[in-house]
Amino acid sequence: MAVGTFVGVDWGTTNARFILAGADGAMLAERTGPGIAALNGADAIAAACFCAISDWPTLPVIIAGMAGSDIGWKPAPYVPTPATAAAVHAAAVRFTAHGVPVALLPGVKTMRDDGFPDVMRGEETQIFGSMRSDSGLVCLPGTHSKWAQVEDGRIASFHTAMSGELMDVVGAGTILLNPKRAPVARPGVQFLEGVTAINHSRLGLETMLFTVRSRQMAGTLAAAAADDYLAGLCIGSDIRSALAFHPEARSVTLVGAPSLTALYAAALTNLGIMSRQIDGKGAVLAGLTNAYQAIFA
Amino acid sequence: MAVGTFVGVDWGTTNARFILAGADGAMLAERTGPGIAALNGADAIAAACFCAISDWPTLPVIIAGMAGSDIGWKPAPYVPTPATAAAVHAAAVRFTAHGVPVALLPGVKTMRDDGFPDVMRGEETQIFGSMRSDSGLVCLPGTHSKWAQVEDGRIASFHTAMSGELMDVVGAGTILLNPKRAPVARPGVQFLEGVTAINHSRLGLETMLFTVRSRQMAGTLAAAAADDYLAGLCIGSDIRSALAFHPEARSVTLVGAPSLTALYAAALTNLGIMSRQIDGKGAVLAGLTNAYQAIFA
Repeated sequence: MAVGTFVGVDWGTTNARFILAGADGAMLAERTGPGIAALNGADAIAAACFCAISDWPTLPVIIAGMAGSDIGWKPAPYVPTPATAAAVHAAAVRFTAHGVPVALLPGVKTMRDDGFPDVMRGEETQIFGSMRSDSGLVCLPGTHSKWAQVEDGRIASFHTAMSGELMDVVGAGTILLNPKRAPVARPGVQFLEGVTAINHSRLGLETMLFTVRSRQMAGTLAAAAADDYLAGLCIGSDIRSALAFHPEARSVTLVGAPSLTALYAAALTNLGIMSRQIDGKGAVLAGLTNAYQAIFA
Repeated sequence: MAVGTFVGVDWGTTNARFILAGADGAMLAERTGPGIAALNGADAIAAACFCAISDWPTLPVIIAGMAGSDIGWKPAPYVPTPATAAAVHAAAVRFTAHGVPVALLPGVKTMRDDGFPDVMRGEETQIFGSMRSDSGLVCLPGTHSKWAQVEDGRIASFHTAMSGELMDVVGAGTILLNPKRAPVARPGVQFLEGVTAINHSRLGLETMLFTVRSRQMAGTLAAAAADDYLAGLCIGSDIRSALAFHPEARSVTLVGAPSLTALYAAALTNLGIMSRQIDGKGAVLAGLTNAYQAIFA
């Protein structure tokens, strides 16, 4: 049995990762568990936690993500932007359960330049873990992509795009793909055609999406490449929106699953924007380690 | 039994309308039937047609819509823009079945200004039926909204937006509405807030959609009004796209179901654009009557 210093948890809506870590942030072991949406209330969440970490008793537990939401273990209210890592750590909800010290990290809320509120839970820990004292535009692509402007390691502002969820429901629920399915994108020619098409267009996604069908009927898009082109339109629309919000951006830090950050990197390169890719799992552990050091060490 | 002059058919993907009409376009009776997607091949389509019109034997039949598609009765290839009603009538595919003369009207295809192909089948008959020798921007809102620039009664160009289908799959398939469902929009305050929000924003639909959630979390949108606001974002995005394509437009002719054209009219009024509404059922019968007169009279 590996001996660690703390347990870091990345608790999302659909799944959870429990990480046994050293004080330096080395990952010693990991377990997976159910997401918050599958657990009905605080008792079920506590039980899932202590079941997952039963091999690692007595170590302090730091949890980022949905466990601090209003459907979570205990509410950890959002910290407003501009948000430093120190402010998020200071707002952690701390308590003891089964004799173990637990810290639930809060999310971050913002009021966007366009007057709309926005929120994140869990992504702030990845951002702090990947950016430290850096500045720049950070994108965490996914079901709900987050785009954050970071200044000297603080989260200055951000917005959310439902690009991943939209791509999935459009592929699986509309007439565009036959058979209907969530697209599996590859950063190939048709993907980049979709990215370029929507970024060179003034038209909305609902209008450009129909070109998945009309191009097939006109014989300029193969049925086998339709999902790739559809993914290019959806990810391209996400990027177009972000660049409209951040017209000065010349580079983007991409944090997430390597297969997904590679798609965004290919799309950004195609649009003349530089990017660097950071593995999301490493970023969340780095962020949880910082939190452990601030709260328990 | 009403005695008519011809049978006009509006045969869509999901349902069909068979109309017994006088030579002057008066509707004398109507029947409904299955859409083309539910019928497997030409024989099934022919059977469905003669079953629906069995009370009205021997009259000529004019069919607009999907019966001329490659999954239809017989292929009626698209007429290119600029398309006159006369060109569409001349391209009708004519044959005799069960002793009855049948004419399948073709659809219209275009190459948009932005280099993408687009197609319509059935909407051209509604446009010709509602515009005659008019000019202007015409919108046929629906599952796949069509926006056509009409010049002296000709269809000069058009584009398709998947706004209705997108609204349905987003409402029924994403986390935005609880319980998940296709939105039922009412032209009230929250609907117009959605229209205004997206038309005043540079951000894409995938980004504005998340405000359905974030506004509820911030307490500025009631859960009961979330579907109305979502519909406003989707219809507003459709209109924003069309106005980007047609920045000179000051008025729009709306052709369709009165409940839907009323929503678009309210949205357009809110954006300072005039509109007039034409009932889609009347428009298609007028278009079919013109076709009857050109082809059979």
